Amino acid sequence: GTKEDVARMESNLDVLWLLFGAYLVFFMQCGFALLEAGSVRAKNTKNILLKNVLDACLGGLIWWTIGFPIALGDVGGQTEANHGKPFFLDRLQGSSSSTYYAMWLFQWAFAATSATIVSGAVAERCAFSAYLSYTFALTGFIYPTVVYWGWGNFGFLSAYTAEKPYLGGNGLIDFAGSGIVHMTGGGAALMGAIFLGPRTGRFAPRTGEVQDMPGHSTVLAALGTFILWFGWYGFNPVSTLAFSHMQHAARAAVATTLSACSAGVTTLAIHVLGKNTPDVSPALNGILAGLVSIAGPCAVVDAWASVIIGFIGAFVYFVSSRLLLRLKIDDPLDASPVHLFCGIWGVLASGLFANKEFTNSVYGTDYGEDAYGFLMGANGTQLGVQVVGVLVIGSWTFVSSGVVFFTLKATKLLRVSAEDEDAGLDSSHHGGDAYNFASGKLNRN
Amino acid sequence: GTKEDVARMESNLDVLWLLFGAYLVFFMQCGFALLEAGSVRAKNTKNILLKNVLDACLGGLIWWTIGFPIALGDVGGQTEANHGKPFFLDRLQGSSSSTYYAMWLFQWAFAATSATIVSGAVAERCAFSAYLSYTFALTGFIYPTVVYWGWGNFGFLSAYTAEKPYLGGNGLIDFAGSGIVHMTGGGAALMGAIFLGPRTGRFAPRTGEVQDMPGHSTVLAALGTFILWFGWYGFNPVSTLAFSHMQHAARAAVATTLSACSAGVTTLAIHVLGKNTPDVSPALNGILAGLVSIAGPCAVVDAWASVIIGFIGAFVYFVSSRLLLRLKIDDPLDASPVHLFCGIWGVLASGLFANKEFTNSVYGTDYGEDAYGFLMGANGTQLGVQVVGVLVIGSWTFVSSGVVFFTLKATKLLRVSAEDEDAGLDSSHHGGDAYNFASGKLNRN
Amino acid sequence: GTKEDVARMESNLDVLWLLFGAYLVFFMQCGFALLEAGSVRAKNTKNILLKNVLDACLGGLIWWTIGFPIALGDVGGQTEANHGKPFFLDRLQGSSSSTYYAMWLFQWAFAATSATIVSGAVAERCAFSAYLSYTFALTGFIYPTVVYWGWGNFGFLSAYTAEKPYLGGNGLIDFAGSGIVHMTGGGAALMGAIFLGPRTGRFAPRTGEVQDMPGHSTVLAALGTFILWFGWYGFNPVSTLAFSHMQHAARAAVATTLSACSAGVTTLAIHVLGKNTPDVSPALNGILAGLVSIAGPCAVVDAWASVIIGFIGAFVYFVSSRLLLRLKIDDPLDASPVHLFCGIWGVLASGLFANKEFTNSVYGTDYGEDAYGFLMGANGTQLGVQVVGVLVIGSWTFVSSGVVFFTLKATKLLRVSAEDEDAGLDSSHHGGDAYNFASGKLNRN
Repeated sequence: GTKEDVARMESNLDVLWLLFGAYLVFFMQCGFALLEAGSVRAKNTKNILLKNVLDACLGGLIWWTIGFPIALGDVGGQTEANHGKPFFLDRLQGSSSSTYYAMWLFQWAFAATSATIVSGAVAERCAFSAYLSYTFALTGFIYPTVVYWGWGNFGFLSAYTAEKPYLGGNGLIDFAGSGIVHMTGGGAALMGAIFLGPRTGRFAPRTGEVQDMPGHSTVLAALGTFILWFGWYGFNPVSTLAFSHMQHAARAAVATTLSACSAGVTTLAIHVLGKNTPDVSPALNGILAGLVSIAGPCAVVDAWASVIIGFIGAFVYFVSSRLLLRLKIDDPLDASPVHLFCGIWGVLASGLFANKEFTNSVYGTDYGEDAYGFLMGANGTQLGVQVVGVLVIGSWTFVSSGVVFFTLKATKLLRVSAEDEDAGLDSSHHGGDAYNFASGKLNRN
Repeated sequence: GTKEDVARMESNLDVLWLLFGAYLVFFMQCGFALLEAGSVRAKNTKNILLKNVLDACLGGLIWWTIGFPIALGDVGGQTEANHGKPFFLDRLQGSSSSTYYAMWLFQWAFAATSATIVSGAVAERCAFSAYLSYTFALTGFIYPTVVYWGWGNFGFLSAYTAEKPYLGGNGLIDFAGSGIVHMTGGGAALMGAIFLGPRTGRFAPRTGEVQDMPGHSTVLAALGTFILWFGWYGFNPVSTLAFSHMQHAARAAVATTLSACSAGVTTLAIHVLGKNTPDVSPALNGILAGLVSIAGPCAVVDAWASVIIGFIGAFVYFVSSRLLLRLKIDDPLDASPVHLFCGIWGVLASGLFANKEFTNSVYGTDYGEDAYGFLMGANGTQLGVQVVGVLVIGSWTFVSSGVVFFTLKATKLLRVSAEDEDAGLDSSHHGGDAYNFASGKLNRN
Repeated sequence: GTKEDVARMESNLDVLWLLFGAYLVFFMQCGFALLEAGSVRAKNTKNILLKNVLDACLGGLIWWTIGFPIALGDVGGQTEANHGKPFFLDRLQGSSSSTYYAMWLFQWAFAATSATIVSGAVAERCAFSAYLSYTFALTGFIYPTVVYWGWGNFGFLSAYTAEKPYLGGNGLIDFAGSGIVHMTGGGAALMGAIFLGPRTGRFAPRTGEVQDMPGHSTVLAALGTFILWFGWYGFNPVSTLAFSHMQHAARAAVATTLSACSAGVTTLAIHVLGKNTPDVSPALNGILAGLVSIAGPCAVVDAWASVIIGFIGAFVYFVSSRLLLRLKIDDPLDASPVHLFCGIWGVLASGLFANKEFTNSVYGTDYGEDAYGFLMGANGTQLGVQVVGVLVIGSWTFVSSGVVFFTLKATKLLRVSAEDEDAGLDSSHHGGDAYNFASGKLNRN
């Protein structure tokens, strides 16, 4: 009958929406690859491309075997029939089955994103075997654990529990993952950059002065950033997961846009006001800062608030980037300023700017009707939950990824030799240069 | 009940459709950036990338504050409750509210497109502060005014008025904006190119002969064009706005494709018949000429007509491009031949080739049942409306953007110095070259 | 009434789904262009870009005139009213009309893909007029014939006949075209490579040893591969054609992903185990091998089976690539190992791994209830059908494209002169180099 047709159509639309989002978020992998390639020196291009390709490929196999089961193994409702099903993607029984495959795909693309963030921070000096190790740890265990805590049906930070959220309020408001995805990736990135130490020559031997090490192609960086922005329209709005909430999705898309716009312009303005010429790179990093900042609050804030969140995100990015250099931490892509520090800001911003109506609409009113933004009139409950979320995700990520990078360093597996670093990773480790413009001419002789 | 479920689903589908289109049209920004970067000399790459990035970022903030309210401030039905709401995107009441955010996003991407067109025509010599000025004028006032006239519920050119269209017939048939978007952007581009004057060396000092100034990367130009074509599938078919008209959308997608194919092949053929070897650039510009030509008529013409429209569009592009060079107007990207002249052709083509059945289906039969294409059997009413549309949009754009560029020129703010132009804008204005292939090697010493 | 609303919505969703898929598959054209451009030497970049641009443009015109009518001229149900309608896309009558335009678009993108595969194999030495000839033959006749046989309502290989499939079982299981698209393109590619002979210098004059001829940009190859992977999410899942089967689509998307991941990692591992450093190119070709292998079986296999199919696909690619070199056949892009040999494997894999439940769900139970994968418990009927499919498609493609390439060779139209090949096709045939990094500097004097 018509009623069944409508229910089936709604279910098909849920799948369509998740697939659409998954494809866009997957394409972000291409964006990261190009942004990172353009931001390193030409001699390390193949190294960073290969890491990004493998973040998707290896990531897929890890996510299939252990990542997804740990993260969202409860997706089928943990009935007897579904026990253990998420391992190797066996088929579910019951109501969750219709979106199960599409959900796996969407979440795989998120997991790959989280892993890719690290590759930027450790660029130009990290050994390839070390890369393989931390990717296994991150995609297979560190990140899935955070997802289970923050988005699972039984997670202690989660807003999606059947019972009252453990932390009170709505549980952690982190709609598309300023904390769960970006802080986790950005936190591991920071640990990687710290344990690896700076690239040779990044800080002048005696004075410690920062030496500029510009990437080899602004075009690739700009192309990568545009693709990331494009893909972010899957990352944020499609985090509604179900099709029935397109109003939330549209609001999230607008908030995503305005925060990116605001942060891009603000970061460029900060750069120019610091007596620099208007360069492209600050605008690009500003856009990314705005996108990360709004990932968490995108569905629960007003348009004006998203402009403010982006505006503040630009300063968070700028200050944290300077701070790292002051501390002699070399993060070639500014991956931790963008993803960790703006990720923190995004989690907190939800606790400050979440609009009551939107929050109730998205997170329900059973437990957290009065748990919205502190600056929007609520008491501090939700803001407190957000602070706890930041502390938990940050601590877990720092400690767990710290152990990984410490172990790799202690076993001398973390960093390539100074000679290989100087020669470039492409010629020393990956079979030759990424570019061969001369080869046609050699054949002319 | 089921009836409400169906209505809600239809409303959600409207939002999905607009978001899908908005994402694709936003991605065109990336296409323009790459096409323009590849078509200028390497020394001006960062300049053009930054302009394209800011067209999206600054454009978003301008569109949020004043552009959208001017253009489509009547979107909420102008009820008491919605008075002034479009400013800063406050929430609407009533039936329009469901697609309101998504509509803002879709229209923002269009506005950014319009602004970006100009950056190509003024490339390699326009001052950055002048760029900021004309972008504010174009995105905040000139373009929104045209949208209000042409697509608003009260516009004097509009086909979407509640009452009989002011101009008679169906009002202006300009489905996705051959006139409203491309003529506006292309007209401002032409004014910019005229007031700036040609790049130094473009015309030989004594003879006035055209000196070839090839762009630095055909790969970037081709990539940009492919992305533009891809994004155009949001621009044209999604201009149905509502989900209930997917037949129109599919027809528009096919027309878009065939016009691009036809114009691409024809332009290449014209080039080769002019005793040249088959180069890539004519094919790329031909594709864009076809895409612009079909934007207006895409929903109301037969497949065979779209092939003819593209075919003629190729000649319009070719002849107008030659004409500009004859007139010593230097438009480095051929932005005005592609967008202005083919935009004019697109508006007129609707008046010539609009099929009666399709036109009635898309524009209704209340007022314009017999107002379709002159060559399809109608009297000249609709063609007359289209001619008036061309004259109005053209005059407004020339005068308003002419005032902007004249003022900038009179205040010496328009053009960079000859030294800076010679050195390249990247090193003189944007912190250094876009490419640093040598930097890896320098570190080896 | 509500019932009619639901039916109309379902019909609109069918169109949306096809358009979505068509756009993604069209974007693969961009992916092929960049992959091929990056994989040839810089001196032949414009040549390969132009071929890819024309595969879309010329392909569109050919597909409109004769390709689509031959391939799917029965799409309107062959009623009196629809007789001859597919030619030039006149409008259909009846139930098929709603998705008719969208179907044409989706299938056009497939046809362009098939033609583009060839351009990789004949790169760097094929004459441009020969390219035009084989594209007409392939897009206008060879490929449409295979589509008619394999996917048409009356094709002798087809699983979509109203009556019992001619070959028994379910007819050919080739969901998204491992055989119909990739074997056809890859088979013609192999013929092209054979008749053209190797690039000058590819095999050392006396020893016959393979001389490495690396492409000029790994970045372009990686970007192209990412875009292809992205576009493949249209190619495979949207081959459900109708919206009512999103479960199949989601399963196909997951299978596509896991096969790509598995084959990418496996090919890289094979490369490294062969005492090489981990290079990017094997990972990229491995991904493509996995994507081609899973195109056919994607909707009917379990997740674990897709991992195995990708794993074996990696070996198929590796061994066939070595085999061609042993046979002194020079396929610069490895187009035939990827598309022909992995395409064959994909067709056979359906006969081995098709799951009974999925196969019955996708292909119905009227005739082929017990015709599924041989390794999944069925008898050999379906595997036999798949073998016949491979033989038929292979024979037809080899013979028909062989005739084309033989004729071109016999009339001396196939290959450019040795001087032009040495100079590069861009400067000798396409108006100059693709890159002009020096031009800015020349103007400084």
